[in-house]
Amino acid sequence: MSNGHSRKSLQIIPLGGLEQIGMNITAFVYEDTIVVVDCGLAFPEDEMLGIDLVIPDITYLLDHADKVKGFVITHGHEDHIGALPYVLRELNVPVYATRLTVAMIEGKLKEHGLYDVTECHVVDYGDTVHLGDLGVEFIRTNHSIANSSALAIHSPVGCVVHTGDFKVDYTPVYGDPIDLARFSQLGQKGVLALLCDSTNAERPGFTNSERTVGTAIDSIFADHTNCRILVSTFASNVDRVQQIMDSAHKYGRKVVVEGRSMVNIIQTASELGYIRIPENTLIDIGELDNYPDEKTVIITTGSQGESMAALSRIATNIHKKVTIKPGDLVIFSSNPIPGNEKAVFRVINELCQKGADVIFQDTHVSGHACQEEIKLIYSLVKPKYAIPVHGEYRHLKAQANIARMMGIPSDHIKILSSGDVLSINSRECKVTDTVKTGAVFVDGLGVGDVGNAVMRDRQILSQDGMILILLTMEKGSNRLLAGPDIITRGFIYVKESDELLEEMQKVLEDTTEDLLQKNITDWGKIKNALRDALSGYVWKKMKRKPMILSVITEVEI
Amino acid sequence: MSNGHSRKSLQIIPLGGLEQIGMNITAFVYEDTIVVVDCGLAFPEDEMLGIDLVIPDITYLLDHADKVKGFVITHGHEDHIGALPYVLRELNVPVYATRLTVAMIEGKLKEHGLYDVTECHVVDYGDTVHLGDLGVEFIRTNHSIANSSALAIHSPVGCVVHTGDFKVDYTPVYGDPIDLARFSQLGQKGVLALLCDSTNAERPGFTNSERTVGTAIDSIFADHTNCRILVSTFASNVDRVQQIMDSAHKYGRKVVVEGRSMVNIIQTASELGYIRIPENTLIDIGELDNYPDEKTVIITTGSQGESMAALSRIATNIHKKVTIKPGDLVIFSSNPIPGNEKAVFRVINELCQKGADVIFQDTHVSGHACQEEIKLIYSLVKPKYAIPVHGEYRHLKAQANIARMMGIPSDHIKILSSGDVLSINSRECKVTDTVKTGAVFVDGLGVGDVGNAVMRDRQILSQDGMILILLTMEKGSNRLLAGPDIITRGFIYVKESDELLEEMQKVLEDTTEDLLQKNITDWGKIKNALRDALSGYVWKKMKRKPMILSVITEVEI
Repeated sequence: MSNGHSRKSLQIIPLGGLEQIGMNITAFVYEDTIVVVDCGLAFPEDEMLGIDLVIPDITYLLDHADKVKGFVITHGHEDHIGALPYVLRELNVPVYATRLTVAMIEGKLKEHGLYDVTECHVVDYGDTVHLGDLGVEFIRTNHSIANSSALAIHSPVGCVVHTGDFKVDYTPVYGDPIDLARFSQLGQKGVLALLCDSTNAERPGFTNSERTVGTAIDSIFADHTNCRILVSTFASNVDRVQQIMDSAHKYGRKVVVEGRSMVNIIQTASELGYIRIPENTLIDIGELDNYPDEKTVIITTGSQGESMAALSRIATNIHKKVTIKPGDLVIFSSNPIPGNEKAVFRVINELCQKGADVIFQDTHVSGHACQEEIKLIYSLVKPKYAIPVHGEYRHLKAQANIARMMGIPSDHIKILSSGDVLSINSRECKVTDTVKTGAVFVDGLGVGDVGNAVMRDRQILSQDGMILILLTMEKGSNRLLAGPDIITRGFIYVKESDELLEEMQKVLEDTTEDLLQKNITDWGKIKNALRDALSGYVWKKMKRKPMILSVITEVEI
Repeated sequence: MSNGHSRKSLQIIPLGGLEQIGMNITAFVYEDTIVVVDCGLAFPEDEMLGIDLVIPDITYLLDHADKVKGFVITHGHEDHIGALPYVLRELNVPVYATRLTVAMIEGKLKEHGLYDVTECHVVDYGDTVHLGDLGVEFIRTNHSIANSSALAIHSPVGCVVHTGDFKVDYTPVYGDPIDLARFSQLGQKGVLALLCDSTNAERPGFTNSERTVGTAIDSIFADHTNCRILVSTFASNVDRVQQIMDSAHKYGRKVVVEGRSMVNIIQTASELGYIRIPENTLIDIGELDNYPDEKTVIITTGSQGESMAALSRIATNIHKKVTIKPGDLVIFSSNPIPGNEKAVFRVINELCQKGADVIFQDTHVSGHACQEEIKLIYSLVKPKYAIPVHGEYRHLKAQANIARMMGIPSDHIKILSSGDVLSINSRECKVTDTVKTGAVFVDGLGVGDVGNAVMRDRQILSQDGMILILLTMEKGSNRLLAGPDIITRGFIYVKESDELLEEMQKVLEDTTEDLLQKNITDWGKIKNALRDALSGYVWKKMKRKPMILSVITEVEI
């Protein structure tokens, strides 16, 4: 490394916006080259009322659009690819990923009408994509979706390893184990920094192999030969579906795949050879009635209790083709993601009430590395700097503790906030700047038109509803032509003759009369006075704070 | 048991309203005697927007008010006593409970101004309260609150055992273990039915003794002698607070108790002797600064991530007296109740970001019996009928499975729905009727004035906000005096000159003109036409469904 280079630095900038929710998008900047790793969306938090999706604010990338050479994507989960259709619309650069990942991205681009205008490149494990001054090498890993990659980002000031989401699976269902040899080679050559998945950094030990789930499911199938079986899992966990299909085939059951996202992914995976559907096993949902219950399996989406997913619709009797019968066995091959527990248990309760038996424990493994796997990666990669990524702050902190245990000095471990510009080279590793980041709300077809003010209004409306005060006045005078009238929504149940409403009416009439007698003609003042009077009355009487709108219509006569 | 009696039956009627959330209230009816076990409230589900509390609909009890002899309460948790102040206001009957439970109820009654008008009786373990034809015997149990009871309800047709919420703790922190001998005696005499706590019926094994938490906390204190310690737990877990105080005392730390509910309960428990505060240990929060950090412990509420509780306020820097410092140790002596996971993790992340170390695993035990304890109770009580209680449907079903394993025939096991009237005697056990039950929403000072229609409006308002269409027309003609005008809230962020709003305005103007030209004077029709036109436009353009109110003001000129 020349002296000239050592003064330059590689900048790493997480652009994910919110800290708590997982939009994975990180810019790697070296001089005039920007390469972006992943481009994920987040699902809204409870308080983001009416929001469908959250995507990152890419102001920084747009401000440096001429430098952005492309997106490199580690794997096909929504929190890594979901924002691409929104972002590419504003910043049309090439996308690089492994074969299945590209296929999943292309599926999204087709839905958004962007397929024809986007350049997607399939990259094989071991290949390096050269983008300006940076070379991005794809390294095989294991995860809960097939064809996942870690990345080695080769820059003039050194190599940075980004694990993506990963686990170490020595016996994966499809393909080979994680390429530990390559991690080791890189470590021997010298790695400047490691960005490692922190999701399970609080959990001791090793994450079990995906194959262990197959064994568990197989033994459940063996024990339940006299009933129909439904298995719910993540749509994108192709290896899981493979194992369920294998068990079905082994026990002579036909398989229906139900749920739009799962049908799409399984079809794509099948076309590309990432799943081998056993012959004469897959049937159409319409054919279910041609087979006895004990010879069928339905693999569905909805393992997180999502209200519109197949399993939830089945559980609540609103699915058109499948109804739960007493004796059905339902297996949740999944764990609830934090925040989804109640929704999942609600579905389980519905299923139980309809007579189904439900198994929801010991039929899932995580796709993320636990502490011993993280240590393994550190011991192979031997990075100079550690930058924990992917997880809530507590997870990042747990990985920082692991990094310290692995001998990395505290001042070489950096937990970054969104927008931090971390400048690294062989001499230093520090946050030198911050850039604008944020969360952009997607609501229906609107992107970014719902901001904090709108959200605050929705919050108020959701809690205590609204009261509308209507007044009609003559233009140029302060003569009252109509009102004050009251309309409420979401406030109280209005009875035929409602005492409270009558009192509210009286408060407004008294206030209006008072104002008019005082010859107050400033309509802004009148509006505020009416609103304040009513708001004070409602709070005193009910301890509620509805949104109160007071509207004066002026009429010229 | 005489022949005459055997034709009569005892009726058991769960009145808890909603299935999924835990309002515990069960009527025991024998001829002209009604005794009600527990009177709990529930906290609102996510979709119950703006609701503070949920209480049971007691129409059934009010319809038979002359027969209701009193409430017998098993223990002092909110889901067993919380609705009392609301219910007693409408149905003033005596309340019977153990000493600490009565003290907690009286605290509530004082807040609601009902203390002077309510008759509360303290019952000792082993005593039987005679209420009409029924005798209710209080039996010592263990639970996560002191002074908990099971009940033996003695009726002319036999004895029913209700466990309340319980666990088997052979080494409780305060008082004696559960009175297994009495359960056994009752079993030997013959028990008609067992109503047993199902909360942990899915969990194998035994629940650990409360004392194991003391040991765990003690060893954490031993390992952390150089920093301040904060411990968060349930306000009502007096034994937990006792053990934390004991550890603090042992390691020479002063203790601050923070959080209104905890301060109240600890004071009550201390006055009644259910907690022994070590001498010179408790200090006021204002005295904290007089001691070095490593000589202090703060015991707080907020272990469920409740946004206004002490720990959450401390974590977000809005607590007036306590600020997190790097190096502070925070122990969550609790598990998140399902649904609270995200809130709890949010607080943990905040604490971590401020430099605190957080321990939230292996520092809590449940207060409910696991499978082996439930089996123990069945083996002692040997009930003729099993009626699983307390829990979601999946828990009740898990207990039903245990009951079957314990030899109770399937048709002697009844999982009841709210409002089911289960009639039992030595000859039969069946649901013979149903009564009206339901959930009553408490919002601010309003009880029951927010129903499903209001909730539906809040739901719509929360998702996409509202649009108000205003039109002023001359009375007796169809002359338009003002409008159509548009006002929105919670819909979109309105920019200075907003294209969308202009288009919406145009849609309304075109529609209005069209209607007036057609001489349509039915204002209902005009309102609907405007609403439909705008709603169609907004859906097509934005895929959103705001609440649209169209209001016509008529003015006489």
